[in-house]
Amino acid sequence: MLDDLRPRLGRRLLTGPAELAVFGCDALTAFYERPAAVVLVESADEVVAVVRACHREGVPFVARGSGTSLSGGSLPIGGGVVIALNRLDRVLSVDPDARTAVVEPGVINLDVSRAALPHGLMYCPDPSSQSVCTIGGNLAFNSGGAHCLRHGMTANHVLGIRAVLPDGELVELGGDSVEPLGPDVAGMFCGSEGLFGIALEVTVRLVAVAEATHTALAVYDSLEQAGDAVARIVAAGLLPVAMEIMDALAIEAAEASVKPNYPKGAALLIVELEGERGVVDADAAALRELLRASGAGEVVATEDPDARALIWKGRKSAFSAVGWLAPDYIVQDGVVPRTRLGEALAEIGRMGAAAGIRVANVFHAGDGNLHPLILFDGREPGMLERAEALAGDILRLCIRLGGSITGEHGVGVEKREYLPLMFTPADLELMRRLRRAVDPAELANRGKMLAVA
Amino acid sequence: MLDDLRPRLGRRLLTGPAELAVFGCDALTAFYERPAAVVLVESADEVVAVVRACHREGVPFVARGSGTSLSGGSLPIGGGVVIALNRLDRVLSVDPDARTAVVEPGVINLDVSRAALPHGLMYCPDPSSQSVCTIGGNLAFNSGGAHCLRHGMTANHVLGIRAVLPDGELVELGGDSVEPLGPDVAGMFCGSEGLFGIALEVTVRLVAVAEATHTALAVYDSLEQAGDAVARIVAAGLLPVAMEIMDALAIEAAEASVKPNYPKGAALLIVELEGERGVVDADAAALRELLRASGAGEVVATEDPDARALIWKGRKSAFSAVGWLAPDYIVQDGVVPRTRLGEALAEIGRMGAAAGIRVANVFHAGDGNLHPLILFDGREPGMLERAEALAGDILRLCIRLGGSITGEHGVGVEKREYLPLMFTPADLELMRRLRRAVDPAELANRGKMLAVA
Ligand SMILES: Cc1cc2nc3c(=O)[nH]c(=O)nc-3n(C[C@H](O)[C@H](O)[C@H](O)COP(=O)(O)OP(=O)(O)OC[C@H]3O[C@@H](n4cnc5c(N)ncnc54)[C@H](O)[C@@H]3O)c2cc1C
Ligand SMILES: Cc1cc2nc3c(=O)[nH]c(=O)nc-3n(C[C@H](O)[C@H](O)[C@H](O)COP(=O)(O)OP(=O)(O)OC[C@H]3O[C@@H](n4cnc5c(N)ncnc54)[C@H](O)[C@@H]3O)c2cc1C
Repeated sequence: MLDDLRPRLGRRLLTGPAELAVFGCDALTAFYERPAAVVLVESADEVVAVVRACHREGVPFVARGSGTSLSGGSLPIGGGVVIALNRLDRVLSVDPDARTAVVEPGVINLDVSRAALPHGLMYCPDPSSQSVCTIGGNLAFNSGGAHCLRHGMTANHVLGIRAVLPDGELVELGGDSVEPLGPDVAGMFCGSEGLFGIALEVTVRLVAVAEATHTALAVYDSLEQAGDAVARIVAAGLLPVAMEIMDALAIEAAEASVKPNYPKGAALLIVELEGERGVVDADAAALRELLRASGAGEVVATEDPDARALIWKGRKSAFSAVGWLAPDYIVQDGVVPRTRLGEALAEIGRMGAAAGIRVANVFHAGDGNLHPLILFDGREPGMLERAEALAGDILRLCIRLGGSITGEHGVGVEKREYLPLMFTPADLELMRRLRRAVDPAELANRGKMLAVA
Repeated sequence: MLDDLRPRLGRRLLTGPAELAVFGCDALTAFYERPAAVVLVESADEVVAVVRACHREGVPFVARGSGTSLSGGSLPIGGGVVIALNRLDRVLSVDPDARTAVVEPGVINLDVSRAALPHGLMYCPDPSSQSVCTIGGNLAFNSGGAHCLRHGMTANHVLGIRAVLPDGELVELGGDSVEPLGPDVAGMFCGSEGLFGIALEVTVRLVAVAEATHTALAVYDSLEQAGDAVARIVAAGLLPVAMEIMDALAIEAAEASVKPNYPKGAALLIVELEGERGVVDADAAALRELLRASGAGEVVATEDPDARALIWKGRKSAFSAVGWLAPDYIVQDGVVPRTRLGEALAEIGRMGAAAGIRVANVFHAGDGNLHPLILFDGREPGMLERAEALAGDILRLCIRLGGSITGEHGVGVEKREYLPLMFTPADLELMRRLRRAVDPAELANRGKMLAVA
């Protein structure tokens, strides 16, 4: 069916089994689906042409950024065409006055900040994968990061989207500077995991690089104490830009891989303050007191860019670093109300011990977004199933505590079956109706989040 | 068709012509439509029952809060049932830890802050009509106010919505504390002018009352100078919570009605700073310098609650106050990029002069949201038409300058015909498809924003 396009695409239309294989999975290794074809597009026009061809022939398609999805999001379920957007990787413009940038969807997250930096600006959302993941993937998953605590997730930073709908129509959603008008369709597109079409151009909001940034690292004898420190910081009215906790296993993993040289302890709390010089100084003094009062052992506080970078490198590499501790792992992504973090962590500890499975914890403590890393050896018979069962139990725990099954990694394929735990049939049916209104044949990202199957 | 409900509703089901009359208009007097019936509901269940009856019989319905819409939004176009929500006016709960409140849709905007204040919290969006308008209306119109400059409009402060869809289904959109998941249907509901159903319960975000609030009032010899001051304040990196400008005519109107005792001049700029004591002090000093440098005449700066309240009373009453200057007026609501404010104001001045019509200007200068008040005497033959023509020209000017036809007053009936100036046919068709997916018979708010007619 893509034969019409072959002359135009040439060697950028992949159909050989070997070439297709790498596009059959994402960063979550548990799932694999071989695409029927992959198109390495080099322009928005090509995306539109491929989508129109798919629509004409009734063939499903899936957009792919860097394939770092952790929920099977970038997989072509049941075959279909993968539209690989990595080559659409240009920052088209930066407007320092309006504090906006217009980017192609395949641009790497970090490259947006790189382009903005000469103007004293940056792009805020910082998934740990920011040096590889794309803005298109971020938008589809409404991705977050350590520094989204104060500034909000991707949806808060996307102003306008030029997109091709699953039927090949071109639309402009949202805008760049003016007040919103009518139903917020751009907002609906964000976080909808590619179900409403493919973003071709994204206008993002930039923020000023802060005058001062202060990073504190505190070590504790227990996770509970670290969690308690977070509660104290919030209660005191401080508004850090990031508050992250790592447990002993996560610390061990980070040390084994990127050697951040963290102080030793059962739990680490990273708190980052940002703002005007005077405010940061005052807040840093208050923070020092709060950390002391919460029973912290060693506290490292720094504003040195290299020292800060190393602290964050350890934290941000924690996922991949657990590869040093076990042959296989599942990253879970659940949310609990911040007030119930301690309870959730204690219960996860008990559940892991009961299952005889080690669980490392790294999490966005400020907003209750947990990332339990379930470590196992897939070569042991039955282990994968036990690890998956534990992962499911952890999700159900999050819901029981009043939380959610995904904070930022999306529903994808992995969590489809958990949606009824979060939504009533009427809620799900409403989302499906909206989806069908835009894509009655369910061509875009078939088999994902709102799949009927 | 509502006969089934008559026993239950009793005298709260209005069908007599006299009783119906007041529900046929909103604060924009230019439009009038008599409803077939009005229901003064007293519970969410009653709303659901009425919606289901309307759905069964194919009768259109429109939710009504306080009827302060300025775009004909609360009118029952072509008849139908008005569901009056004013009696659903309770703040159901305030959670000071989570900083949220759950409210009924008919609650008055200001009453939410009143309920939150004992906890040191407040509800942020502050339309000038806040002492009368309802949260349901605010949500439907994504209303803003002077203090939305830093904190964002209503959509930024709504976390969850329990709603009845036009077919009578009950849904829960969004949530109270956890990260969003899936397409942001709550976001789509906000600002959609009631097209997707009726909000029955709204969970809103509260913010801490600032430690210090500093209000400065600067008088200028020209609007341009006042506009220039705003540009300087933004360029200097100050982040006021509000920046409002009033021109001579608006000042005159305010003086004639609520007597704020403003200093005399061609233009007034109100700037409000809010935050921690130390920051506000530093910013206030910087502001003083900036105002001086921008050529301000008299500058009044105060932190006294009564003095501040009087300053704001003058500003917030400016719309209704123009009634002192002319028998009739049209409030326009357009947006221009902040950088083109000066140009827009100069052009509006020229257009008014050419038409022989006085135009008073009051506006949210910080975000380029203009509110030209077109003053006329409707008893003079042809005057209404000339005033409306001028209003249309002003909107087209806003669009030409890269702006929008509505900042916060909605599309309603009044601005339907201007939508094609803002959206492409594909954009409009996408919104219509979403709307039809939820309401194929177009029962909810028929004849409004996305009406096909
Ligand atoms: C080590 C590691 C750390 C991570 N840390 C974080 C973290 O801190 N926070 C976080 O939120 N996530 C994190 N992730 C998950 C992942 O990086 C994010 O979900 C990211 O946004 C995916 O981007 P991508 O370019 O790789 O998208 P892909 O995986 O290629 O695609 C993801 C989804 O987006 C859709 N999509 C892609 N481009 C478009 C487009 N242009 N239009 C419409 N839909 C599109 C795809 O169809 C797919 O459904 C991490 C992943 C790894 C491997
Ligand atoms: C003097 C004056 C000053 C004003 N100042 C401002 C201002 O500063 N900023 C601003 O943004 N607006 C302002 N407005 C406009 C108006 O007050 C707002 O639009 C307000 O939000 C309307 O609220 P209401 O309760 O009066 O709604 P109504 O006028 O009764 O209804 C407005 C719309 O909301 C829908 N609706 C009402 N309740 C619900 C519900 N529960 N679920 C779904 N849909 C619903 C209605 O169907 C209608 O389409 C002003 C108006 C006046 C008269």
